[in-house]
Amino acid sequence: MFKTKGYAAPAPKAPLAPFSFERRDLRDNDVHIEIQYCGVCHSDVHQARDEWGRGMFPMVPGHEIVGKVIGVGGKVKKFKVGDLAGVGCMVDSCLDCKSCKEGLEQFCENGFVGTYNGKNKDGTPTFGGYSSNIVVREEFCLKISPKLNLAAVAPLLCAGITTYSPLRHWKVSKGQKVGVVGLGGLGHMGVKLANAMGAHVVVFTTSASKVEDAKRLGAHEVVISKDMDQMKAHLNSFDFILDTVSAPHDYDLFLSLLHRDGTMVLVGLPDKPPELHAAALIMGRRRLAGSLIGGIEETQEMLDFCAEHNIVSDIEMIPIQKINEAYERMIRSDVKYRFVIDIQSLNA
Amino acid sequence: MFKTKGYAAPAPKAPLAPFSFERRDLRDNDVHIEIQYCGVCHSDVHQARDEWGRGMFPMVPGHEIVGKVIGVGGKVKKFKVGDLAGVGCMVDSCLDCKSCKEGLEQFCENGFVGTYNGKNKDGTPTFGGYSSNIVVREEFCLKISPKLNLAAVAPLLCAGITTYSPLRHWKVSKGQKVGVVGLGGLGHMGVKLANAMGAHVVVFTTSASKVEDAKRLGAHEVVISKDMDQMKAHLNSFDFILDTVSAPHDYDLFLSLLHRDGTMVLVGLPDKPPELHAAALIMGRRRLAGSLIGGIEETQEMLDFCAEHNIVSDIEMIPIQKINEAYERMIRSDVKYRFVIDIQSLNA
Repeated sequence: MFKTKGYAAPAPKAPLAPFSFERRDLRDNDVHIEIQYCGVCHSDVHQARDEWGRGMFPMVPGHEIVGKVIGVGGKVKKFKVGDLAGVGCMVDSCLDCKSCKEGLEQFCENGFVGTYNGKNKDGTPTFGGYSSNIVVREEFCLKISPKLNLAAVAPLLCAGITTYSPLRHWKVSKGQKVGVVGLGGLGHMGVKLANAMGAHVVVFTTSASKVEDAKRLGAHEVVISKDMDQMKAHLNSFDFILDTVSAPHDYDLFLSLLHRDGTMVLVGLPDKPPELHAAALIMGRRRLAGSLIGGIEETQEMLDFCAEHNIVSDIEMIPIQKINEAYERMIRSDVKYRFVIDIQSLNA
Repeated sequence: MFKTKGYAAPAPKAPLAPFSFERRDLRDNDVHIEIQYCGVCHSDVHQARDEWGRGMFPMVPGHEIVGKVIGVGGKVKKFKVGDLAGVGCMVDSCLDCKSCKEGLEQFCENGFVGTYNGKNKDGTPTFGGYSSNIVVREEFCLKISPKLNLAAVAPLLCAGITTYSPLRHWKVSKGQKVGVVGLGGLGHMGVKLANAMGAHVVVFTTSASKVEDAKRLGAHEVVISKDMDQMKAHLNSFDFILDTVSAPHDYDLFLSLLHRDGTMVLVGLPDKPPELHAAALIMGRRRLAGSLIGGIEETQEMLDFCAEHNIVSDIEMIPIQKINEAYERMIRSDVKYRFVIDIQSLNA
């Protein structure tokens, strides 16, 4: 067993605080990673505060994990000590159902094991990346290119794959007109990725203050979505829209911007469900879909794509002692665009 | 000009009453049809009562038209006097835009001309099939097989194509599990068509009284959608669901029955938009889409498919003098499953 330092929410709505626990001894197919950086995802806040219910406490959040391999089990083939490695939202799944066999572990029909706030197959709780090290079965570890800024790679493990997967699955490609709704942790990755795929990228934001930044990130156009004249100019014109917004908002409005047979994909989860007029879909035979992170194979493909195109997240680094403050700032959207914890700070 | 007898709504919410008007002289590409039967669509009621706004009065409803060709313009090629012919929801479109060129006149980017409550390119109003005859350009006339009961073919021109088009577009095929939500004019056609395409058809209805009838029409299973135990037994199992219901209802509930990557298509227009939880789409990467009638080429394909598979609508024939009563009965869903007007009754 490996002694591990971390930060945990001891109970729902309690601030995160130092927490010590143990990682399991290495099994044959386990990789032991010394965590260097861990991104801070919005879902960390929701779960640490038990806003989605069914939280298990104490809870060590964190599923945007990068670090260095410090040990491997006897049958591990893809990793060796000294390699960089990443871990995203999943640490296990059945690997046997139809979805797993298609490389879509996020839709495992027996339920994937979440990196934190989940239960391992042996019933023990999973603890996430706000911690000094982690033990994960090889199949759920990702290769990380040393080319990129490691801290800024961390958010790719959730924000990156969550936006990459729908762009790829719906075949966004060169010359297509692609909208990205919302410019936060997810949206800013969507812009970079869609741009790198060759699309004409239009960002929709409610705040005029984000226009310049959106362009810097790769948007070809920026539309203030509260301005109906600007919106009307784009009616019936999009091939694809990626909607990353978690606040309740008007789906119909964005659907009306798709051309015939266009698709809008939701990756944000508003707590109050928006209304949907069937006419917004019937007129133009439009499609609305959802997408959930991505499979392991696709996550590796995304990481390789990012290495090739020199894409990382825009981050603000924090020591772990600032995590509660960071949560408050995230709720106010006061971060450009992802907090990443410097895990070294656990030793401070 | 051809003197024409019909029934019209003289003003919004006024009962339909006899109305005389004239059809245009035949242009080179026009077909002149003596109408024998006209189906009664729910949208006739909505429009005659101006519930969707923008109604033009007097209004002669009717877009499920079948009859006999009694005259053709000099350049008409596909029809000759004595042929059977049908007319659906459209009598014209630009035939020049991207959608028209793909055979999707229902999505004409310049707007198709509705069979009634529309405006011809010359600005004159269009009058529908509750009338003794109609003049329609050849491209919007359909061939009707003499094999089938002509009166029962009429509803295929709207209810038939509205359900056929999404089943075909989303490639419903042998062995797939397909749901049909609602067993009315649209739903009963959806059941017959999906069955003929080889699918395993499950009907969702709120009324236990429809179970036997659903099976007679071709359903392999019938689920009472208010019974949550019955619903749960079908979680994550459908390839495709065709939702024909126009009353407000719970989209999330039916979406949860789709398996991963499954699609639900809406063809009904609830006046109060239902709420949609993004999670219903995100979990399982499910898709929700809309579909609008169908193009002319596809309508012909549907009519040929129906002739081949001996499919017609289940109808209740009425004389036109009963049309106002029929509207009231339709609103109460008191019809199995489509009223068809015997246009001969105009001479009574």
